[in-house]
Amino acid sequence: MTRKILSDLRIATLDAGGAPYGLIDRGAIGVEAGRIAWAAEADAMPAGWSGVETESFGGRLATPALVDCHTHLVFGGNRAREFELRLEGASYEEIARAGGGIVSTVSATRALTEDALVESALPRLDRLIGEGVATIEVKSGYGLTVADELKMLRAARRLEKLRPVRVRTSYLGAHAVPPEYKDRADAYIDEVAIPGLEAAGAEGLADAVDGFCEGIAFSPGQIARVFDRAKALGLPVKLHAEQLSDLGGAKLAASYGALSADHLEYLGQDGVAAMAKAGSVAVLLPGAFYFLRETERPPVAALRAAGVPIAVATDCNPGSSPMTSLLLAVNMACTLFRLTPEEALAGATREAALALGLGDEIGTITPGKRAEFAIWDVEHPAELAYRIGDNPLYRRIVEARD
Amino acid sequence: MTRKILSDLRIATLDAGGAPYGLIDRGAIGVEAGRIAWAAEADAMPAGWSGVETESFGGRLATPALVDCHTHLVFGGNRAREFELRLEGASYEEIARAGGGIVSTVSATRALTEDALVESALPRLDRLIGEGVATIEVKSGYGLTVADELKMLRAARRLEKLRPVRVRTSYLGAHAVPPEYKDRADAYIDEVAIPGLEAAGAEGLADAVDGFCEGIAFSPGQIARVFDRAKALGLPVKLHAEQLSDLGGAKLAASYGALSADHLEYLGQDGVAAMAKAGSVAVLLPGAFYFLRETERPPVAALRAAGVPIAVATDCNPGSSPMTSLLLAVNMACTLFRLTPEEALAGATREAALALGLGDEIGTITPGKRAEFAIWDVEHPAELAYRIGDNPLYRRIVEARD
Ligand SMILES: [Zn+2]
Ligand SMILES: [Zn+2]
Repeated sequence: MTRKILSDLRIATLDAGGAPYGLIDRGAIGVEAGRIAWAAEADAMPAGWSGVETESFGGRLATPALVDCHTHLVFGGNRAREFELRLEGASYEEIARAGGGIVSTVSATRALTEDALVESALPRLDRLIGEGVATIEVKSGYGLTVADELKMLRAARRLEKLRPVRVRTSYLGAHAVPPEYKDRADAYIDEVAIPGLEAAGAEGLADAVDGFCEGIAFSPGQIARVFDRAKALGLPVKLHAEQLSDLGGAKLAASYGALSADHLEYLGQDGVAAMAKAGSVAVLLPGAFYFLRETERPPVAALRAAGVPIAVATDCNPGSSPMTSLLLAVNMACTLFRLTPEEALAGATREAALALGLGDEIGTITPGKRAEFAIWDVEHPAELAYRIGDNPLYRRIVEARD
Repeated sequence: MTRKILSDLRIATLDAGGAPYGLIDRGAIGVEAGRIAWAAEADAMPAGWSGVETESFGGRLATPALVDCHTHLVFGGNRAREFELRLEGASYEEIARAGGGIVSTVSATRALTEDALVESALPRLDRLIGEGVATIEVKSGYGLTVADELKMLRAARRLEKLRPVRVRTSYLGAHAVPPEYKDRADAYIDEVAIPGLEAAGAEGLADAVDGFCEGIAFSPGQIARVFDRAKALGLPVKLHAEQLSDLGGAKLAASYGALSADHLEYLGQDGVAAMAKAGSVAVLLPGAFYFLRETERPPVAALRAAGVPIAVATDCNPGSSPMTSLLLAVNMACTLFRLTPEEALAGATREAALALGLGDEIGTITPGKRAEFAIWDVEHPAELAYRIGDNPLYRRIVEARD
């Protein structure tokens, strides 16, 4: 059984309760067989560990490796030209006529092979890994045919083979109504979204099932039909909800015991209460809020008061959040949504792990969890939230299991 | 005379006029003795260059190396704790009592030696260089004694010896009234700001003279006294103006033929007209706007209409913009201030060079200018503005002079 000690660290364990950030000021971490054996003040090392191979980190800060719990990392093309047209004053109609909008990403994604999708996602993944991310959620949702949705999920799964990162996939067939189903959203659900879900389930390609509940996407009733099937397949659900209006999506998701409801700018008190009761995580996506210049903020105070865990993610996607920095999302969660640095950092570690159903495995520096750490060239964890556009990662550590 | 050719490039020359971004679609650049000899479509290479050593860049995008024309890169400490206190609900009074605000940066800066200031600035500088920046402006302004202001400028100058980057210094003695001159701003100007300027001038430590014209800093009359001395010393001026209110600072600066007026959220039409007439550059600092959650936007349409050149910079500083990504400032200039990607990219190259009085030397890919390029892993220059928190730099090229 391989053992090692990481020493001379300030450790933000992010364990809930206790000191802010679960801070251990002059600490060390014992690792055994790829898991955390202990984390303690240096002078409180457990018996039986003297003589174990020790690496010193010169007083640097350790946090759990970061977790990006909401991304659309796999897609074709980009929407830079649409961004430019909009800033040059083009109307939405003109942009649509120029082939813009989500339709352009769907076309570009359909046009790529699985190999090419993997290839185009890798630089984005590498950027996140280079910032200390060790677990990333990746959604389908730009294929919108059974075959193309499966292709996206297979591409997402392959990322895990190509890079030292844990990938959790979410099947998001109910992301948008493709042009060929214009005004026939129900038929799309029956003929594509649900058959795609069944195929993904049969192939073991989906760790969870997601949907987009919004006026411009799918109604709560349509989402419920997808979620019923997910339940029958034994797959957990999550939902894009209350981003642009309050359709009661979070409440619906909570009624299925959702892992999370995401965005939530327009979440009402009943939705907050339902999430609290169900134990669903509120995943905040400030990158999309920023990029779309939204003004309605998620009800952070109400979520806090109700004890709903709050996660923070990049929402990396070409249309509304072309963002590949989770640290920047953490800064935006503070600056724009007024999370505290401690909340935002917990949101990109502990609560993000919860949002993926991995709360027992990762997200805090706690005995029994995986030995996955980010070591930073900063003195205090608040600096990770305070700095804008920086990347003070010293080293990402992901210990293999024996 | 060393010659070389950079080939197989898409070139955003950023030359004004002509195609958007001054784009050359399949181009090459000839370099001779550290300067650009020509930039042209590959099939239009001038005679006499066959057989010259050629490096191919696989179709990547070339832009001028980036120019960060407004930073406070050299300082002591950081203000992460203050950021945290504020988000935890502390009042300004409580933060002041906890030693927060600019005073804390002044104390931390005074406490550091020149060596330690250099040491603490290097990671920030490296981050900018890693993003394709080859020229950076650095201000004093946290010393606020003659000796400490000179120490800051010497530290800034030394950065140029330690890294392959061009540093332009601005003397910013009139940045804030230090505690020991509380309510005696005029005395501070006479006893510190002006003597410091004279000492900096005598030592050749200042390339320009800056000030902060604002209710919380110095009045136009006080700034004018500093600028009069700058004029006598033959030094160009620039000014932090109209960030929080309209005191007529930009107009004052323009009356001295200022290189630039910076921030400008509250700039009025008279200020715009004065800047246009003087040829002063409007330096926009969206990082500070974002971090301070300002709501008044600089008058971009009026600046455009008047033909005032618009630059974009990080304003890297610990209090209001702890930002070390110029690409992120470019994205924010588009997202928050509605610049077009072309304007924002010109703002971080061509117009930034103008704001430093270096318009003849750098900022565009134009024959005669320095061979300083950024080569990017993107297809279209708009992607540089569209992506958030990415760094697609492939290589920064800074050719030495022969
Ligand atoms: Zn999403
Ligand atoms: Zn400034």
